[in-house]
Amino acid sequence: MKTYNYPPKAEWESLCKRAQIDTNRLNESVAIILDDVKRNKDEALYKYTQLLDNVILSNIQVSEEEINDGIALVSEELKNSIQLAQKNINIFHASQKIEEKEIETTQGVKCWRKSIAIEKVGLYIPGGSAPLFSTILMLGEPANIAGCKEIILCTPPSKDGTINPAILYTANLVGVTKIYKVGGAQAIAAMGYGTETIPQVYKIFGPGNQFVTKAKELIQQQGIAIDMPAGPSEVLVIADKTCNPSFVAADLLSQAEHGADSQVILLSDDKNIVTEVLEEVDKQLQELPRKEIASKALENSSAIVLDSIEKCIEFSNKYAPEHLIIASETAENYVSRIMNAGSVFLGNYSCESAGDYASGTNHTLPTYGYAKNYSGVSLDSFVKKVTFQKLSKTGIINIGNAIEVMAEAEGLQAHKNAVTIRLKTLQND
Amino acid sequence: MKTYNYPPKAEWESLCKRAQIDTNRLNESVAIILDDVKRNKDEALYKYTQLLDNVILSNIQVSEEEINDGIALVSEELKNSIQLAQKNINIFHASQKIEEKEIETTQGVKCWRKSIAIEKVGLYIPGGSAPLFSTILMLGEPANIAGCKEIILCTPPSKDGTINPAILYTANLVGVTKIYKVGGAQAIAAMGYGTETIPQVYKIFGPGNQFVTKAKELIQQQGIAIDMPAGPSEVLVIADKTCNPSFVAADLLSQAEHGADSQVILLSDDKNIVTEVLEEVDKQLQELPRKEIASKALENSSAIVLDSIEKCIEFSNKYAPEHLIIASETAENYVSRIMNAGSVFLGNYSCESAGDYASGTNHTLPTYGYAKNYSGVSLDSFVKKVTFQKLSKTGIINIGNAIEVMAEAEGLQAHKNAVTIRLKTLQND
Repeated sequence: MKTYNYPPKAEWESLCKRAQIDTNRLNESVAIILDDVKRNKDEALYKYTQLLDNVILSNIQVSEEEINDGIALVSEELKNSIQLAQKNINIFHASQKIEEKEIETTQGVKCWRKSIAIEKVGLYIPGGSAPLFSTILMLGEPANIAGCKEIILCTPPSKDGTINPAILYTANLVGVTKIYKVGGAQAIAAMGYGTETIPQVYKIFGPGNQFVTKAKELIQQQGIAIDMPAGPSEVLVIADKTCNPSFVAADLLSQAEHGADSQVILLSDDKNIVTEVLEEVDKQLQELPRKEIASKALENSSAIVLDSIEKCIEFSNKYAPEHLIIASETAENYVSRIMNAGSVFLGNYSCESAGDYASGTNHTLPTYGYAKNYSGVSLDSFVKKVTFQKLSKTGIINIGNAIEVMAEAEGLQAHKNAVTIRLKTLQND
Repeated sequence: MKTYNYPPKAEWESLCKRAQIDTNRLNESVAIILDDVKRNKDEALYKYTQLLDNVILSNIQVSEEEINDGIALVSEELKNSIQLAQKNINIFHASQKIEEKEIETTQGVKCWRKSIAIEKVGLYIPGGSAPLFSTILMLGEPANIAGCKEIILCTPPSKDGTINPAILYTANLVGVTKIYKVGGAQAIAAMGYGTETIPQVYKIFGPGNQFVTKAKELIQQQGIAIDMPAGPSEVLVIADKTCNPSFVAADLLSQAEHGADSQVILLSDDKNIVTEVLEEVDKQLQELPRKEIASKALENSSAIVLDSIEKCIEFSNKYAPEHLIIASETAENYVSRIMNAGSVFLGNYSCESAGDYASGTNHTLPTYGYAKNYSGVSLDSFVKKVTFQKLSKTGIINIGNAIEVMAEAEGLQAHKNAVTIRLKTLQND
């Protein structure tokens, strides 16, 4: 980690820069895969699974038997842990339901909103080194609470054609309706267009590599909604002298181990704290199985000393971190100043891991500065909020003239007529 | 309008089809404009304004004096009407604020969400035949309620270099911070990248022609959020024998006059109602100043008779209309069946014009079937919902073990360590 002591504000902009990710070169190859799946459906899926995952499948859909066999392989300890996490995620996301408040904006004019589930959603869970069953909790549980009718999941098969048991267990637990052994851009295409086996969905969620990200970006332009734009994961920790430097170091490393492209930022108003934390980082790093990945991530990372915690928050608002940890006994004092962040962890015992797994908040969050303009996944992500209105005769009488005047001024006579014809009828009543 | 009597379900899919819009041919020309504005900033804006709007401007920003002069030109009647609409929009959108409910998901684990305004937003208002000041109300008022600090507005100048007075009045009323005389793709580029005069914003809202739509689509891929994907406006009316056919005809025409590419759909369980409505449409159409536009729109439109109102709702859910009017005295009975719609108007006095202007609901809504996966603009569109969490010592003790087990199972040792190190410290306390 590079250390910067009291950098002037003019330098903040460049300190906030993320690594440039140019995925334009992927445009063409991903577009070819999308188009192939659109035309050749299942056939293309079998082909790419053989080509890219080195697996010849006899069936894309995971059978009931495979699910049951998988579930039997998961330890009771892990099942209990996943259930505890599910309970908390359920409680927090269920609390996000909006009440339908009927608002009478003018006498006789009633307006309200209703949350209606997106009928069909698709979850993508990457394969690779770690089976991300926690992400299934974060996406599947709110989809279930929202009432989505079809919740499908695509994930690439292992070399032997199986799916990790913890993934099968969690998907089954949260009510995923169907699981498919498909990964990469071809999985996004399958959910976006539909195939003989995989139903088309209206919104696609979940993380993935650059091919998956590019496929989501391209499919979004074709009318399929996606959760949010993607970028490497990141944490910004603001630590004052009341922090515990070992805890802070552990938090920085838990982010750094995600991937070589992860970024961690440490801010403090205290030089000694920075020194202590960095020493701890070095020490703890040695013990990590993913040491190499974490080391690479730390190379793109910085520790910055600023005048005050207020300045640190100001910097953080400019950076707009995915995760913001305020490692201070008085963390709550700074809440009102926070403008841009995905999820905020207050105090010395609120580690990012808690939110990653089991506290109840969602871990699908805006990265790469998108916390300036995007929210993380929540119950809102799985519903449309539809407005309703009911005008009584009194209602149209009360606001009719205003509508007529405005429609006329916009040159929209037929809009005016729709009111005039009603007002005339009421006059003749 | 084409009439279909009791089409079998197999035909519904094709009856729900919108006109294909292929804007790919615009990709290149719009990308050139975006790139030019990114590089040459204000200079490019002056150039395109001269080239495309035929206006040589001395200043892009509308001055205080111009705003005041404009306001003086707006009639008291129009001012009062706009204020009435503003009041209703304010009441309805202010009611959408979320309460910050602190949820204790497990003892010692507190989670909550906070709505934080997107700091900088840009509104685009098209020029052309009609000055869409109503859209300024729909975008500016919720931006103001949300607490956005910078609310800028771009709109193309008239041939004489001025902006319509009603636009200036409304923008000033809802607290738009700055108004710029720029239109088209170049306006979207200016707000997306920032120029010497126009500040960069984080989210861009508003309707526009195909160039504007394409520019929003391209700028979204560069990390700037947009309100939603765009398509031609549309209404679907479900009318039973308790409707007033003249009202229904007026509503269909108020949609049809929007543009030649608008689509209107009439559904009924009663053949005679369809006949009566269509006769009324013909009659009322003759009187319209925008008769030609409306006639074209009606050519792409259909009237469909189905077995029952339930079937009509089922069809509507498949179509997913931007506006859904249920022209029936018992409209409220059908609410629970509605799955996909942007905004719903219940009963014979809830005309679409009411929601377009003054009832309080938003008129920026998902078109083109996007009501299946997108919500209309609301207060939510101008905020990020940031999650916060605070774990006490008890909290981490209660959920720590579950996190450790899950992190280990995902192969993320450093995630586990962040908990272990805290639990150990607490044991030694």
